[in-house]
Amino acid sequence: MSSIADYRVYPLISSLETVECLEDQVHVKWADQRLSPFHYLWLRDNCPCSECVYGVTREQVFEIADVPENLRPHSAEIDPEGLLLINWEDGHRSRFEPGWLRAHAYDDASRQEQLERRGQKHYWHHDLDLPVFDYQGVMEEPEILLQWLLALRDIGLTQVRNVPTDPESLIALAKRISFIRESNFGVLFNVKPKADADSNAYTPFNLPLHTDLPTRELQPGLQFLHCLINQASGGDSLFVDGFSVARALQEEDPAAFRHLCEIPVEFRNKDRNSDYRCLAPIIALDARGEIAEVRMANFLRGPFTTAPQLMPALYHAYRRFIELSREPRFQFRRRLNEGELWCFDNRRSLHARDAFDPTSGVRHLQGCYVDRDELLSRILVLERQRML
Amino acid sequence: MSSIADYRVYPLISSLETVECLEDQVHVKWADQRLSPFHYLWLRDNCPCSECVYGVTREQVFEIADVPENLRPHSAEIDPEGLLLINWEDGHRSRFEPGWLRAHAYDDASRQEQLERRGQKHYWHHDLDLPVFDYQGVMEEPEILLQWLLALRDIGLTQVRNVPTDPESLIALAKRISFIRESNFGVLFNVKPKADADSNAYTPFNLPLHTDLPTRELQPGLQFLHCLINQASGGDSLFVDGFSVARALQEEDPAAFRHLCEIPVEFRNKDRNSDYRCLAPIIALDARGEIAEVRMANFLRGPFTTAPQLMPALYHAYRRFIELSREPRFQFRRRLNEGELWCFDNRRSLHARDAFDPTSGVRHLQGCYVDRDELLSRILVLERQRML
Repeated sequence: MSSIADYRVYPLISSLETVECLEDQVHVKWADQRLSPFHYLWLRDNCPCSECVYGVTREQVFEIADVPENLRPHSAEIDPEGLLLINWEDGHRSRFEPGWLRAHAYDDASRQEQLERRGQKHYWHHDLDLPVFDYQGVMEEPEILLQWLLALRDIGLTQVRNVPTDPESLIALAKRISFIRESNFGVLFNVKPKADADSNAYTPFNLPLHTDLPTRELQPGLQFLHCLINQASGGDSLFVDGFSVARALQEEDPAAFRHLCEIPVEFRNKDRNSDYRCLAPIIALDARGEIAEVRMANFLRGPFTTAPQLMPALYHAYRRFIELSREPRFQFRRRLNEGELWCFDNRRSLHARDAFDPTSGVRHLQGCYVDRDELLSRILVLERQRML
Repeated sequence: MSSIADYRVYPLISSLETVECLEDQVHVKWADQRLSPFHYLWLRDNCPCSECVYGVTREQVFEIADVPENLRPHSAEIDPEGLLLINWEDGHRSRFEPGWLRAHAYDDASRQEQLERRGQKHYWHHDLDLPVFDYQGVMEEPEILLQWLLALRDIGLTQVRNVPTDPESLIALAKRISFIRESNFGVLFNVKPKADADSNAYTPFNLPLHTDLPTRELQPGLQFLHCLINQASGGDSLFVDGFSVARALQEEDPAAFRHLCEIPVEFRNKDRNSDYRCLAPIIALDARGEIAEVRMANFLRGPFTTAPQLMPALYHAYRRFIELSREPRFQFRRRLNEGELWCFDNRRSLHARDAFDPTSGVRHLQGCYVDRDELLSRILVLERQRML
């Protein structure tokens, strides 16, 4: 029955043992002795029957505002097949599979388990054991694809090798995840010196450690950089785990860390035909207070605007973040060769490039973006398929 | 000189009168008697000279971490041309135009003025005086285009009329702003009943008030719905200003409002080939505590997961938000005819559709999305061009 409301399979972890009706909730006891409360409104809201959920789209048609706030059951019981059966006082009936119910239980222990299943970030430093994947493997084997995507989610820096040096290979690789996110720089962007550069990326200058497009409300989730040719001297790639730097700052100077979490900073990308501005803090935390995002590109930053008495503290924190990110203990350095490709979490892994000598040879990289939503969706679909 | 660092023109609002050096900042007095502090680090950071800013890209190459935190000037003065001239103790010189300096001053009065220039939201109800624009005008006249975009920014619901009923017209109109944001439903999506629907949108059912793609971290900023043909009975469009509903809830029941701001809710979009999930509160506030976004689609919502003691309060708040949005005082209802097009702020204006009878005639809408970043950038460029 849960298959109506979801594409996932919910294995039976523990069977239902008893159900007890209280004033506004049932208490369910599981065979492993866990106790889970389920409020009546929650149960009615999540009724998976074919009247409440349209089977073709698996989307709800019932709305919880359509029943009284004090709706109660006539009875709640475990039926002969082991499902929780609720007979509502208005005549509706709801049945819940114990696998689905356990997966969505919201007692403290179950919520903690759900959090832990969301994956663990691995913080890294100069000595990162770089996750490397083979282009053909990623293109052909769902399990290798999944391993690559999990490395992107949890480590945030990967390399793919043996990528044919034509632009279609990059597009095909990105599309293994999903569609490409366009920007004012195009669907694919070409990183090579241009006479009329609209970004310092398109010069032979060194680029300090940064995330791309901090000037947009949602920074691109994944960045791809594919090396088509690299015959110039200089131009090595440099990466730093922005989460490791942020955590080091938090340990060393909690007040400075807090300022970077709380004081919004404006990033600007000014061009003849666009004028992007985004006001956001440099470090973003998630609902649990954990470091979830870094936003940083000194060359795209606007003037700080905050109360005058906070200005020295903001500069202190900002400078300290940059100083830390320059320390060798954080820096992973590698030259990108033809047929190699960086793919990294652009909202976490800061990247930089040494200056290079454009007279010494040609250097041509191509890049594109895919958003984090698409990465996480593809991981869930691949995991779902592995369970079948 | 400011032209190196920026494309904007900063008119001279008031000239510099005096400058006084304090320990870590200068105090500038303007001819209109305003006093603005500027910290030395802020001034050094924002030096617009051609050593600090690369003239072609207008992006900074200097980084503030490259000078000592206690950098001081030898002297600070107003030069014969009326610019603020700083001679730094390390030999560097910085000159600031008073127009640019005033526009970026961060004393309390100046920060307040900058806030006010960001535009004012106009809350609306059932009796909205719908902003209507002509397709040809928007396509050809920059000033009409700008007025349309300002209505989208500040009101969030507009109609464009006399749109040729071919798909290219919608694309051309969206591209007046910028590129289209792709999603798993494509670049353009066709709203008409499908046998194997992957969304309730693609059925003849009524759709309750919702935002599109609440299942993504960043909901699409603007939604376009272009009517190619509408011969079916039923299917009227309905809009509600989500900000007005949120504010009504805040006035009526501050605790309920706070719960919708603070308790994240999961939205899910499950399909055979995708599995999007986003955990976010239904109401988002900006840095000033003002209502900045509504996220709502009952048919895409996952089971609530929060501490059991909060569950009744969350249901109370969620039900109340839906009940309010159903009240006629908020509802703007209109049938969309051939050649007409809705364009609205998808993160603010909830939209709904009555059920329609697919046997009574053909109904075919086409839609697409453009993000808020693109809207705001286009407005800034158009305003910049108007100033020249």
